[in-house]
Amino acid sequence: MNQLASRPAPEWRTGQWFNSDRPLALADFRGRVVALHAFQMLCPGCVANGIPQAQRIARLFDPARVAVVGLHTVFEHHEAMGPAALAAFIREYRLTFPIGVDLQDANGPLPYTMAAYGMKGTPTLVLIDQQGRLRKRSFGVEDDMRVGADIATLLAEEIPYEPRI
Amino acid sequence: MNQLASRPAPEWRTGQWFNSDRPLALADFRGRVVALHAFQMLCPGCVANGIPQAQRIARLFDPARVAVVGLHTVFEHHEAMGPAALAAFIREYRLTFPIGVDLQDANGPLPYTMAAYGMKGTPTLVLIDQQGRLRKRSFGVEDDMRVGADIATLLAEEIPYEPRI
Amino acid sequence: MNQLASRPAPEWRTGQWFNSDRPLALADFRGRVVALHAFQMLCPGCVANGIPQAQRIARLFDPARVAVVGLHTVFEHHEAMGPAALAAFIREYRLTFPIGVDLQDANGPLPYTMAAYGMKGTPTLVLIDQQGRLRKRSFGVEDDMRVGADIATLLAEEIPYEPRI
Amino acid sequence: MNQLASRPAPEWRTGQWFNSDRPLALADFRGRVVALHAFQMLCPGCVANGIPQAQRIARLFDPARVAVVGLHTVFEHHEAMGPAALAAFIREYRLTFPIGVDLQDANGPLPYTMAAYGMKGTPTLVLIDQQGRLRKRSFGVEDDMRVGADIATLLAEEIPYEPRI
Repeated sequence: MNQLASRPAPEWRTGQWFNSDRPLALADFRGRVVALHAFQMLCPGCVANGIPQAQRIARLFDPARVAVVGLHTVFEHHEAMGPAALAAFIREYRLTFPIGVDLQDANGPLPYTMAAYGMKGTPTLVLIDQQGRLRKRSFGVEDDMRVGADIATLLAEEIPYEPRI
Repeated sequence: MNQLASRPAPEWRTGQWFNSDRPLALADFRGRVVALHAFQMLCPGCVANGIPQAQRIARLFDPARVAVVGLHTVFEHHEAMGPAALAAFIREYRLTFPIGVDLQDANGPLPYTMAAYGMKGTPTLVLIDQQGRLRKRSFGVEDDMRVGADIATLLAEEIPYEPRI
Repeated sequence: MNQLASRPAPEWRTGQWFNSDRPLALADFRGRVVALHAFQMLCPGCVANGIPQAQRIARLFDPARVAVVGLHTVFEHHEAMGPAALAAFIREYRLTFPIGVDLQDANGPLPYTMAAYGMKGTPTLVLIDQQGRLRKRSFGVEDDMRVGADIATLLAEEIPYEPRI
Repeated sequence: MNQLASRPAPEWRTGQWFNSDRPLALADFRGRVVALHAFQMLCPGCVANGIPQAQRIARLFDPARVAVVGLHTVFEHHEAMGPAALAAFIREYRLTFPIGVDLQDANGPLPYTMAAYGMKGTPTLVLIDQQGRLRKRSFGVEDDMRVGADIATLLAEEIPYEPRI
């Protein structure tokens, strides 16, 4: 899984959230592994592969240990993928994990979080470890067995003692 | 295939068309078999099954003999499935067959053409014979072998002599 | 479907039959379309694709009009695909259509019927029309929609009047 | 994964081996995780699901850390699944991991190793940890994500210090 030199995962910059009564931040998930699924609702590969895989992750792992979070990283067809459209999509596809909308950057082609994570497109699966470090970033179709192994590897890590004063 | 007593297919009542430089009417297809695929862009069964099947029909059969026509029959989430959204969807899914937007009926829950054809939901596959008669209406997932057989059956029909004055 | 100039289908030369209380010959099927599925029980493409397709043909079409017949055309690993092995295979895969064993030719690499039909390997799907003529021979994976259309085309053919004295 | 109270995996009792120049024993794999795939060559669920999954395990994980081993546990149709038939099967399906033939027990319906492991049928996936303990036994179709997670969990385990004199 060592695709990435381990570094703190960039904070998310999001607008509206769905399936959550409040905005979520990385710090909310400290102590859990986070599977962050970046998608666009009109991206065929996301609909056919990425989103069903995110749902399988959410079903397989104990939610107290693994959090699945969606990130709607719109970088094209903005007029067709606004909040009302995303709400309808979430309802039709019966998605239950929390989904945040990545903030548009007025100065760039990509929304903020997508750019901060260095994503190349959608779907992208990001894994963040129990200490909040970015550990995997995978663009496109990733096979289930590898994803299962990668998440379990992060779950098995000892969390070092971190004194807090 | 004899699901329906044979009757003239109701005329379509459509607004905007995509992948066509002009509105299309049933009469444009006289002499061809028409596979009319009614869908909504945010309907999961349409995206996973119905639309790919419509594309397979378009690839398999000679377009001079079988016309594939899409009909966007929106009856829910109207705000998310307007023309701009549909245009983005068509582009992302690389649909090349002509697609008309079924006209909304201010007095009813279903758009006009959907109601006129007695459709129960989306996806629905309709087959219209070379003489413009409604011959099949199938809601949900229909297997490819049956669809291939139904279309070939209509192609094999003799067109009776129709004197025109 | 015009892959083959239409000619009388060669007679089958078979040994043992399964799922039939007597050997079957082409003449037994005159008036019906025959889908002849040539396979080997240890051929991965047959097991994954060809045989399931033959079963779908058998389920979809009226058996009074379309007959599905299996032909075990062994040309390799003879010691592993004898009658006892085939019987076990038929039972495990719950095949119910009649299956004949193509006769080995002591002088050639291919069994008799396989050679007579010009088959290149397994799986091969052969379609024989209502008059006993060979109309299609397709090696490898053939998509369901095309197979459905080809069979329906043969079903739709008028059988010309053939006086018998 | 805690389906089984952890106990030493029973030794295998095998006859002929394929894809190995010598018989293999559990002790040969100490220090590695073993994915033992029990199958019968004429079992449809093995051919469609279990064996392809075993091949995916072999492709995904480092063979220095995870060993995939096949076990041919014949308990029916013995006449059709002898060594020559298995050799043909292995060749046709291009299996490259070592495969041992479970020894028949003259006194019981199941071969020895199958009985010793308490298997209920085929396919069965067994996971053995780096210390040779039986950790998982799963009958039927197991999803890839879970299998990946289970293997990675065993890989992540610390192997306790074992003094050897």
